[in-house]
Amino acid sequence: MEFDLDPDLTAASSFVADWPLSRVLLMNDARFPWLVLVPRRSGAREIFDLSEEDRLTLSREYCRAGERLKALTQAWKINIAALGNAVAQLHVHVIARNQDDPVWPSPVWSRGYAVPYEPAALAKFLSRLVNGL
Amino acid sequence: MEFDLDPDLTAASSFVADWPLSRVLLMNDARFPWLVLVPRRSGAREIFDLSEEDRLTLSREYCRAGERLKALTQAWKINIAALGNAVAQLHVHVIARNQDDPVWPSPVWSRGYAVPYEPAALAKFLSRLVNGL
Repeated sequence: MEFDLDPDLTAASSFVADWPLSRVLLMNDARFPWLVLVPRRSGAREIFDLSEEDRLTLSREYCRAGERLKALTQAWKINIAALGNAVAQLHVHVIARNQDDPVWPSPVWSRGYAVPYEPAALAKFLSRLVNGL
Repeated sequence: MEFDLDPDLTAASSFVADWPLSRVLLMNDARFPWLVLVPRRSGAREIFDLSEEDRLTLSREYCRAGERLKALTQAWKINIAALGNAVAQLHVHVIARNQDDPVWPSPVWSRGYAVPYEPAALAKFLSRLVNGL
């Protein structure tokens, strides 16, 4: 089956890269540097729906995303989560958090509203991610 | 360094098992079947603070916990997350969610208050987990 990205994820994000397993997206919310990794496997909803090999690749990919996002943004903490209550397609959030961010220490979901990036700021941050992840 | 469980996690949970890497806990909140896996590695805050080998073991352990918790509880969705904004010690939430649970589809954190299990219900569920995970 071909891989199709969920339309809500598509609408809320920008493309960063295709890694061996996952498509890497940047969520369009300037409140938090927020990546989403979407394994290109049709029909997967849970991490444990993936094959053993894909599970390990996913572990490597969210660790790579988390480590490098932390270094790039000097974040205090990285939140890594596979929830999928609203969007069924398997996806893993990798979010840079700081003690002075707008919803700290709460998780980011269902808290306030996304603040879209200014176009120039989005282009600049995407370029840093493309080169730095 | 010896492994010490964070006092807030200790107070909020019951011991289920020690797996090769992680201590498995049941959170004392009857609203959601909610496990927490705590890798027995002192000083780790992020998954990527772990060695490559421990990262893979952790992936196996949260998949095992998620798959079996889903089967035991007939949950609609499993939420798997390493947040650590409030409790610094690395821990991974594995939470069984249903479309009729009290905070669906929001994530469970910072939503309402924990509802402690009745002692008999806790003992019964712990026994099912000890045998079924």
